[in-house]
Amino acid sequence: MFTLIILLLVKRKTLANAIRITELLNQTGTKRRSSPPIVLGGGVSCDLVGFACSIYRRGIPYIRIPTTLLGMVDVSVAAKTAVNHFGFRNRLGSFHPASNTLLYPGFLNTLAVRHVSNGLAEVFKIALIKSKYLLDLLDAHGEKFFKSGFETNSYISEIIYIAAELMSEELAPNLWEHNLKRIVDYGHSFSPLIEMTYIDELLHGEAVAVDCLYSAILSQQRNMLNEDQVYKIFDIAKKLRLPLYHRGFSDEKLVLAALDDTKIHRDGNQNLPLMCTLGEAVFINDLTEEEMRNASKSLQNYSAIVDMDEKQA
Amino acid sequence: MFTLIILLLVKRKTLANAIRITELLNQTGTKRRSSPPIVLGGGVSCDLVGFACSIYRRGIPYIRIPTTLLGMVDVSVAAKTAVNHFGFRNRLGSFHPASNTLLYPGFLNTLAVRHVSNGLAEVFKIALIKSKYLLDLLDAHGEKFFKSGFETNSYISEIIYIAAELMSEELAPNLWEHNLKRIVDYGHSFSPLIEMTYIDELLHGEAVAVDCLYSAILSQQRNMLNEDQVYKIFDIAKKLRLPLYHRGFSDEKLVLAALDDTKIHRDGNQNLPLMCTLGEAVFINDLTEEEMRNASKSLQNYSAIVDMDEKQA
Repeated sequence: MFTLIILLLVKRKTLANAIRITELLNQTGTKRRSSPPIVLGGGVSCDLVGFACSIYRRGIPYIRIPTTLLGMVDVSVAAKTAVNHFGFRNRLGSFHPASNTLLYPGFLNTLAVRHVSNGLAEVFKIALIKSKYLLDLLDAHGEKFFKSGFETNSYISEIIYIAAELMSEELAPNLWEHNLKRIVDYGHSFSPLIEMTYIDELLHGEAVAVDCLYSAILSQQRNMLNEDQVYKIFDIAKKLRLPLYHRGFSDEKLVLAALDDTKIHRDGNQNLPLMCTLGEAVFINDLTEEEMRNASKSLQNYSAIVDMDEKQA
Repeated sequence: MFTLIILLLVKRKTLANAIRITELLNQTGTKRRSSPPIVLGGGVSCDLVGFACSIYRRGIPYIRIPTTLLGMVDVSVAAKTAVNHFGFRNRLGSFHPASNTLLYPGFLNTLAVRHVSNGLAEVFKIALIKSKYLLDLLDAHGEKFFKSGFETNSYISEIIYIAAELMSEELAPNLWEHNLKRIVDYGHSFSPLIEMTYIDELLHGEAVAVDCLYSAILSQQRNMLNEDQVYKIFDIAKKLRLPLYHRGFSDEKLVLAALDDTKIHRDGNQNLPLMCTLGEAVFINDLTEEEMRNASKSLQNYSAIVDMDEKQA
């Protein structure tokens, strides 16, 4: 007997929601090994059910069927589960990979534009730090994601496939995060607290996208990227219909608090992944408050210019 | 910076208590790796803090200093953490071993008699299924646990050491319980639901002790133990000041429900460890309701007779 948990409308990764799922598992007599629940839903749902299964009877197996792009390229290859708590993103959670994950690209046809972009943000992230080739694909063909017919477009399939492969390449050797220097944390340095502060406005991918742009500006300030490269990055984000700016990134106190909290998560170190060229990253540990203030201003300028360019074009 | 969590007065393993501990970890800025909290307390406290640490930031290290006998011989060697929920024992939890466990027998001098017995129940259990030698030690010297001077009595030290070693021998090769046939589940087949039903009356070890006796009677019914052996077992329990009977074991519905729930935990199988002689166990999977009814009656008779013997002696 399998419990099929369909969670298409759950928006919040709360502890209360996770406990409700464990209650469902308890009521349906879910056994420890041979009746894994199946979750059909987006990244939020997969995270919630994964966390519930990780604590129910000290962990039972489960099967994921992600229905969103974010679920397919990011959650699908990760071992992580979590809920938000105390106003912090993923503050409670576990490492509890699904025993199986089934991908069916046809689900993507059911997605609203905003949720397509939301997933593309993680593709964008992995391209920026790990693959100039994927970045060029996004530049040339990313817009195709907003036309119908996901299954039939070979560029779309290739982009999804490469993104998931690259994520997996980074996660697999460090699945339990014994090493806290992770380039996949790119876009996830300042965004977690900002996403939580504006949780009614920002989807995860949207917060990540703005963090990616903000961090690219930090690279430029250190002469690791030139202005043309930064414009190119903004242009691609625009093509993926991602936000180029959010006021949270201009809130000095919030950005500083975000980095402080991220440092605790990285055991006291910044371990900040920054692009050193398109498709490659290095770690820095000496970011200053001044650099952050300057980046906040530049972010606003760049985004305004790219927006204006588009209107003129 | 280390957070020292002293939980000497926490009696309940509730989710709310575990979440309060994660909140404390959050407030004190506990890092992911280098500031493990230290828990000083009994088995309940170790379980609570262990669970909190397993879900805080997807798991942080922690250090246990058990202050009770149960904590020293049982919790100290286990990887398990848990809270009770939905009226079931340990229904939510994780496998999250402490990075260090420090044992100081001097704490035992602070224990009330009832809590000494509570710990001896797990010693009694492991002896029954795994070591006739330890059982004989308990028979000859168990009563010494109720005199002062834990550190100086060599029999006491030997009993504690052997019990922890034997537990560890069983747990280590099967730490994540991939194999659900575990002889250490002896005494934990019927007791979990009965303990939860009478949570204001029964300590964990007390419920386990009565389950051990009830299960010994099941062995006798199958001619794996003779009457003399069963009396000897009851006598030793008496010396360890453990309860010999509890009315929960005469509640037919409750005992059946307990086995049903345990079956779910053993993935649909009874996998019931039963003694096949003193110090040795086998698994059975065909226990009948009739055998359980008979055992309930016998338990009441045996305990009454052993109690009477003592009064006459």
